[in-house]
Parts: sequence; C-alpha cells; structure tokens
Amino acid sequence: MSNNINFQELAEYFKSVQLNIVTALEELDGKKFLKDDWIKDSTQNLIGNGSTQILENGNIFERAGVGFSCVSGQSLPKSASLERQHLSDCKFNAMGVSLVLHPFNPYIPTIHFNIRFLVVNTPEKDIWWFGGGMDLTPYYGFEEDCIHFHQICKNALDPFGNHLYPLFKKQCDNYFYLKHRNEARGIGGIFYDNFDSLGFEKSLDVTKSVANSFLKAYLPIVEKRKSHSFNEQNREFQAFRRGRYVEFNLIFDRGTLFGLQSGGRTESILLSMPPKVQWGYNYQPQINTEEEKLYTDFLPAKDWLNKDGLNLDKDI
Amino acid sequence: MSNNINFQELAEYFKSVQLNIVTALEELDGKKFLKDDWIKDSTQNLIGNGSTQILENGNIFERAGVGFSCVSGQSLPKSASLERQHLSDCKFNAMGVSLVLHPFNPYIPTIHFNIRFLVVNTPEKDIWWFGGGMDLTPYYGFEEDCIHFHQICKNALDPFGNHLYPLFKKQCDNYFYLKHRNEARGIGGIFYDNFDSLGFEKSLDVTKSVANSFLKAYLPIVEKRKSHSFNEQNREFQAFRRGRYVEFNLIFDRGTLFGLQSGGRTESILLSMPPKVQWGYNYQPQINTEEEKLYTDFLPAKDWLNKDGLNLDKDI
Repeated sequence: MSNNINFQELAEYFKSVQLNIVTALEELDGKKFLKDDWIKDSTQNLIGNGSTQILENGNIFERAGVGFSCVSGQSLPKSASLERQHLSDCKFNAMGVSLVLHPFNPYIPTIHFNIRFLVVNTPEKDIWWFGGGMDLTPYYGFEEDCIHFHQICKNALDPFGNHLYPLFKKQCDNYFYLKHRNEARGIGGIFYDNFDSLGFEKSLDVTKSVANSFLKAYLPIVEKRKSHSFNEQNREFQAFRRGRYVEFNLIFDRGTLFGLQSGGRTESILLSMPPKVQWGYNYQPQINTEEEKLYTDFLPAKDWLNKDGLNLDKDI
Repeated sequence: MSNNINFQELAEYFKSVQLNIVTALEELDGKKFLKDDWIKDSTQNLIGNGSTQILENGNIFERAGVGFSCVSGQSLPKSASLERQHLSDCKFNAMGVSLVLHPFNPYIPTIHFNIRFLVVNTPEKDIWWFGGGMDLTPYYGFEEDCIHFHQICKNALDPFGNHLYPLFKKQCDNYFYLKHRNEARGIGGIFYDNFDSLGFEKSLDVTKSVANSFLKAYLPIVEKRKSHSFNEQNREFQAFRRGRYVEFNLIFDRGTLFGLQSGGRTESILLSMPPKVQWGYNYQPQINTEEEKLYTDFLPAKDWLNKDGLNLDKDI
C-alpha cells in the first residue's frame, strides 16, 4: 500500500456513496433494498468483503443492484488494465461501487454508475489509479434527458479542467460500444480509467464529484418519465434492447470480466444483468417509429451539449 | 488447401446435414424454418457464405436455429484452437453446422449440436482438424432421457474405438462448464476438437456418425416430453436456467467468440441465444423439488451408462 493513502478511510468513503445512493433510491421506489453483506476468504487467491444491495420487483425498478466491494488478490487479472498489461499478475487491492438500475417502465432509461480505486504492488513501488463514470441507456430517447444527463456530467468535471469532460465523454463512447453490432450501448456519459494525472487528492476529488453528481443526473429523468404510459410492445422492445446490455456486459465489460476472472462473487458481479430479456432473429425496428429513432437519433455518438448536434468522430 | 481434401465436396456434405435436420425438425414442429442465405465479402478479412435457418414461435420450438457457414479468413482467431495457439494469425478455411434448439415446454431439454472442419495454412503445410459433438441441457431431469442420449452418443463412436466415447464424454463435461458458477451447463454428451488422429477419411466418418446420430438422440426425448403439462412457475425456472446458457455462450463458448472475433455474422452466431431469459438475485431452488433435483441429481458430472451411477472425476 502507498504510504500516504489511507485505504480504510477510502473504503469508508466508498461505502458512504453506496449508502447515500441506496437511501435515495429507496425513497424514490418505496421498496427497500435487500442488503447482503459478504466476506470472501482465500478462495482462488482473493480475499475481501463487500455489500451487495439489490431491489427486485420494486415500484419503479424491476431490478436495481448497487454493490460495494473491497478485495485483495495475489494476481491482477489482465482485464483490470488494458493499458498496463505489465502489471498483470502483481498483487493488488481494489475497491469499487458499481450500480446498474433496470426500471420497469421502458420510458425510463437504464443507468450504470461506477467508481473504483486500485493499488498494484510492483517490486519497485505501489501504483494506484482511479476509474469511474456513468452512462445512460434509454429504450425511448428524449433529447432533453440526454442534454440534462451530459450537462450534469460536464458540471461535475469542469472544476478540474475543461479538458476532462470531452475526454471522458469520448472514452465513454469508445468503451460502451458493441463492436459485433456496430452499435453504441446507449447515449454515453463519462468514463475514465487509469486516472492519476492530478495526483491522489485531486483525482479523489474528481471521483467524489462524479459520485455526488449521480443522483442529480438520473433522478430528474426518472421523475419526468415514470408516469409515461406504456404497453406490451414497449416492454418487448425493452426486453430486446436489454439483450444488447447482456451482450455488452458478458462479452466486453472489463469490470465483469475482472470480477469473474479474479474469482469474485458471481451473484454480485452479475447484479448488472437485466431481469427479463429477449432475443429474436434479426430484429429491425419499423420505419418512422420511436423505436427506429433510438437507432437513428440517439445511439450514434454525438455532442449532446453542442446545439448544432454534430456527430463526433469515433475512432474505434 | 490440402491436396487430397475436396473442400467443396465436404461443404456439400455439411449442407446436407443441415438440410436433413431442418427437414426433420419442420416435420416435428409443423412450422417452417425461415431460410436466410448470406454471402460475406471481404469485411474484416473474412469472406464466405452460409445459410442461417431459424424457426421462432413454433409449436414445439420457441426458438430453433440451425446454421451452416463456410468462411475463409486472413488470420485465425486465438479462440479457434486453444491447443494450437501457434496457428493463430494464419490464413484459414472453416466450415460448420451448428444448432441450438430452445423448446417452449420446459420439460423438453434444450440441445446443442455442432460439427466443424478447419484447415489452417502454415508456411510449411496445411493443417486440418475436425470438431463436433452434442450436449443436452434439461430444465427438468429424467434419468431415462439422459441414459438414452448418452447411449446414442456412445453407439455413434464405438465403431471407431471404445476409447472415443469416454474421452469425448469427459471433454464435453469439461468444456460445457460454468467456472464462475461451479456448475455444469447440462448433463453433457460428447465434445471433440482438434481431431485428426484417425486420418482424414476416418475422422470424417466419425463426424458423419455423430451427425447421423443427432436426430436419433434428440427426437425420442422430444416425443416423450412434448405433452408434459407445465405452468408459469416451470416457465420461470426455464427462463432463469436459460440465463446460464447465455452466460456460458457469451463468456466461454469458443465457437461464439471465434465467430465474433473473426468478424462473423452476428445474428447467425447468436442464433444460440434463448428467446426469453430471466435473471434474479441469488436464486436457489426450494428443497425437495424437481428444480432442486436438477442441481443434485443431473448437473453433477456422472457416468450415465454405468448402472452404479458413480460420479466421474472432473479435472477442471
């Protein structure tokens, strides 16, 4: 562990993020989360503890998982850092809060939020970094929701330099991309990893600012859309689009692969799985429908905060 | 291409396997498959053609996909052969027939069958091998079905040496295993890969024998179970167990990863996805139920053809 980093204190902060979010979501939904605290000792070289909090069949949320975990391992999986493959197999400590919320109403978007901190013990020194972000996955798009979401993301980062939002926004578009579908997972947000460039204190402040922004970014969208009427066909489209979410998380998501590869707790890692999902052959939305608009107007990466709405270059 | 191997003739044989199986399944179900023939030219260094045949919302099958493909690529993906990593990045030709049938009635098991042939062009020479097999994934277990299925598998292989069935059976148990769940996908069957040990003609004969056995192995089980009554709770259990099928195919299955990594046709590769799937936190079957019996009596690897029913060693 680095000399100046109080890992325990940091873990307490991460736990407080989980608590605040779960408390707010319980108030919103009206149903309580199940709290499943766990300790993992010495299986597959991984020890640690965590708290998996989950709400299923709520009033708003069909399945909502908010997980905290803090683990130490003997061998860092390759998936932990694509940019730092030389660190794989080193001892590591990792903590994170991760959530995916799957609302029942297809007009409320699914959301993902994560913050994480890693320390890797190399023979020479300890190397640490932060990661995190949030991204929105609507089934039915509303431009004002996308603008609101991205504006809150930008507001969270601007105090630390105007370069951060465009950088993290682009990283988000690149990361949450289904290569095999040539399709974005959702309308993006912000994503950062291997982040240490501002030094420990400021990098932590960035992470705190992102964490503080999550409820501001998401709750107003839920409030606006939760009374939107929907029918069976809307639910089917949601179930079908959730299939893309499953594909992304199981094929590409490094957090998921990191967890499964490092011998993590499967049910906690797979909190992100949607409750009800559907696959059908070669599904295409009908032309001139709300469903088609998702593909034409919302999924292609764009600068939501630029009034001209110009598409950004994607360098995937 | 190897001098003595007629790739075109082999492709015709593979197509005939697809045709025979689809014809029999159409007769069984009463509904016709959609036939989607495709040609892929030069995208991502992969060219080829195939026929994706799919039946959705049938009388027996909720989603049944039978695919044929024949492709040539500039660079063999690593997932193509774990045992022959030195061949990755070589030019290759591959053909295969692959099917996954998801019945509507939870008392009819899901089945997977595959035969494949690969030729890899190394600077020194062409290297070829066959692969294939079939495995059964029941939601509700019937011992007699498991015995029947394994007996047909054994009968298919015994003419080529008594060692093949135990070897391929064990390979199947090892391959179709969800490490992160510590759980088998189903009750096994046979699986072989990198198979060339009998020479081309005999190795092809093994593959033909396996292909000829598929309908004999599966149809009697469908006939026996298709009138079994079921309720919503049985369907829920099926949807939940199908989640395991998705997890296996997207996280572990080399055929799926090979297809997606080599730039294959996504909708054809993901034919294997179940139609309706469910995830729920920490699902445990109630004790003394049929659902629990699946976990205790059917999923643990065992020798179905040995009357003592002794568990086999698993060396995963």
